[in-house]
Amino acid sequence: MTGAATTYDDYFQRALDGLKADGSYRHFAELERQAGRFPKAYHHGMGREVTVWCSNDYLGMGQHPSVLSAMHASLDHSGAGAGGTRNISGTNHEHVELERELADLHGKEAALLFNSGYLSNWATLGTIAARMKDCVVLSDAANHASMIEGIRHSRAEKQIFRHNDVADLEARLKALPRDVPKIIAFESVYSMDGDIAPIEEICDLADRYGAMTYLDEVHAVGLYGHQGGGVAEQRGLSHRLSVIEGTLGKGFGVVGGYIAGSAALCDFVRSFASGFIFSTALPPMIAAGALASIRHLRGSQDERERHQARVAYLRAALDRAGIPHMDNPSHIVPVMVGDATRCRALSDLLLSRFGHYIQPINYPTVARGTERLRITPGPLHSTADIDDLVAALAALWQEQGMAAAA
Amino acid sequence: MTGAATTYDDYFQRALDGLKADGSYRHFAELERQAGRFPKAYHHGMGREVTVWCSNDYLGMGQHPSVLSAMHASLDHSGAGAGGTRNISGTNHEHVELERELADLHGKEAALLFNSGYLSNWATLGTIAARMKDCVVLSDAANHASMIEGIRHSRAEKQIFRHNDVADLEARLKALPRDVPKIIAFESVYSMDGDIAPIEEICDLADRYGAMTYLDEVHAVGLYGHQGGGVAEQRGLSHRLSVIEGTLGKGFGVVGGYIAGSAALCDFVRSFASGFIFSTALPPMIAAGALASIRHLRGSQDERERHQARVAYLRAALDRAGIPHMDNPSHIVPVMVGDATRCRALSDLLLSRFGHYIQPINYPTVARGTERLRITPGPLHSTADIDDLVAALAALWQEQGMAAAA
Ligand SMILES: Cc1ncc(COP(=O)(O)O)c(C=O)c1O
Ligand SMILES: Cc1ncc(COP(=O)(O)O)c(C=O)c1O
Repeated sequence: MTGAATTYDDYFQRALDGLKADGSYRHFAELERQAGRFPKAYHHGMGREVTVWCSNDYLGMGQHPSVLSAMHASLDHSGAGAGGTRNISGTNHEHVELERELADLHGKEAALLFNSGYLSNWATLGTIAARMKDCVVLSDAANHASMIEGIRHSRAEKQIFRHNDVADLEARLKALPRDVPKIIAFESVYSMDGDIAPIEEICDLADRYGAMTYLDEVHAVGLYGHQGGGVAEQRGLSHRLSVIEGTLGKGFGVVGGYIAGSAALCDFVRSFASGFIFSTALPPMIAAGALASIRHLRGSQDERERHQARVAYLRAALDRAGIPHMDNPSHIVPVMVGDATRCRALSDLLLSRFGHYIQPINYPTVARGTERLRITPGPLHSTADIDDLVAALAALWQEQGMAAAA
Repeated sequence: MTGAATTYDDYFQRALDGLKADGSYRHFAELERQAGRFPKAYHHGMGREVTVWCSNDYLGMGQHPSVLSAMHASLDHSGAGAGGTRNISGTNHEHVELERELADLHGKEAALLFNSGYLSNWATLGTIAARMKDCVVLSDAANHASMIEGIRHSRAEKQIFRHNDVADLEARLKALPRDVPKIIAFESVYSMDGDIAPIEEICDLADRYGAMTYLDEVHAVGLYGHQGGGVAEQRGLSHRLSVIEGTLGKGFGVVGGYIAGSAALCDFVRSFASGFIFSTALPPMIAAGALASIRHLRGSQDERERHQARVAYLRAALDRAGIPHMDNPSHIVPVMVGDATRCRALSDLLLSRFGHYIQPINYPTVARGTERLRITPGPLHSTADIDDLVAALAALWQEQGMAAAA
């Protein structure tokens, strides 16, 4: 190794040592998902089967027979990959069908696929805010990294409004010149606290002050609304949003991201977004799997109902056991720990002694001091699984002398 | 629609009208790839089967039996998606195995997977250049959009050196203070002109001036080198590069991207890159398919040999027919047209009259005035396919009164 290489590596190593010292270095659990046995998975580090409690395949669609059979069929029919960017031989029939389905799901004229939800946020906000002269982006303080990076990338003026605070948002809108373009960027379900935005009030403000609305429904699509169109659908508000952004990798169980909006807006992003234009398209088979998943969840209430029932069951069991968890109206159950090292220790003990896998959530995913075990029960967890988990948590809570819920 | 929505849509529509007026609006061809019949595909717009000449599935691995069977098996075993980010339940055994294989392929200590090659460039350069204090990035003038956006994102100082010009690069390195961190970012095979970088000379300069080297081998992995490790492997230079970046979506036929480098560097990017951390991992099945593809291409010379033979056959046939094409040492055969509208017209005629699909390459993918038909013949094109294509091109060249090669 040359001298220069050593110097650079030293630099990287020192940064990593810093993470290790403050407990925020991340160890990835090496799993083997087992289709047909979700939420169980084989844990390579432990050498045993565990119960997974922190998956964002919220409804277990990643093992749904219609999803798998659509993917098998498409793999046989069209092969493994798309073979090109969307413009250069990469657009397949499945992409077109999926975009049509997504537009329809959200009641929009059009939709546009990306390789991930991260890219859809980054590329869409990055492109629109950069290209509209003098654009100001009003961004919720709790927005996801992908939106933050997209806005940063655009170099447009950004104003951060207090999380879910419509009064602060209104004050900022009011102070801006009427005729500058404005985008209000926010999420429906916030993934770490599980709270939900006041979507209607934000749309009212957008109308009053002439702003576009950009709503990230990544943690809601598939899960909320009569057809799985997200919280906007559930509340009858889809038509009031300029852009609804979602993922195909969580509730729908596959991978990929998208936006839905007006035909002009989607065509604009399609035509100008570097992150869309210059990248190989998703495999047709992925689009086929996502399409099957969406179609299933548009027609079936069963997964959503069982999902909500399990969430309620877990909350009640935690309450009975005196385990403090953050109250919220969604499916995300954050058990607060408040310290990175302790959070990791609890997670390790849950895994090694009880076979329950819950990844500790530490900085930078959440603010320091708010470290937590984020539990996402799903329709495939049995009530016995939940009882078992809560008993394990209760035992650890007592052993570790942790405070019970008030 | 509210007044504000109309205003925004008008803005988007005007921008699109501008593209239409100058001939650079993109129409996507809607294809249906047919595994087992590559390079044939069903063209939905035309309602017929066509021969695809512009795929970046360069070796046809997207229909290779071992790739498809690995994916079928993984789909049955692990399901459709990863279910989470790499840190939160998304790391599967297949990801770990694939990263190990990629490290080994490039003779590096480690590798790191991303959802696309675009993301691997953007996130890696964006993270390293941003975090190393006072870092200067020396970027080849012809670098891909994903590198440019990553560097832009980092807000590090950027110097653009003339394309493949080691004298210009050296002058710039020499002028920089010895102790500021430096990254030289470049590609091996440039995708639109098909020329290849002077990798060894650039590595020599990097050693002399204490710079890191970042090499994009997206259009070379799988295709060059005795094991498909790219041009760096072919030239025995892999060990001299700090980072080798590649895609799983072109030569390997699936989708995804990666970097390979020192353990510290990969761990650093893993730990700090927003675009890696905050996004759902690739499906295990995609990793399994890519792994099978890489393993096959490490052992087999057949695809690479037939690939090069077809490229040589096409060039010779074009020469005989007097069709001007850009000379270069790679597998990319650019037939120069030099005008967006004419380029599109030629492409349309090739398709409608002859059933040959070659997407016109216009601005912003290439500079205005260098519009072209970019042909990528592969091992699955027969010599009869090539004869047929060249006859069609010759007929159009004559009809349209286009200049013959000197
Ligand atoms: C709110 C939010 N938006 C976007 C994303 C990115 O979506 P994807 O995982 O499909 O990249 C995530 C998480 O991964 C998220 O939590
Ligand atoms: C030179 C270069 N780098 C990176 C990429 C991005 O790779 P991917 O298609 O896997 O996103 C491309 C093309 O798509 C490319 O041409």
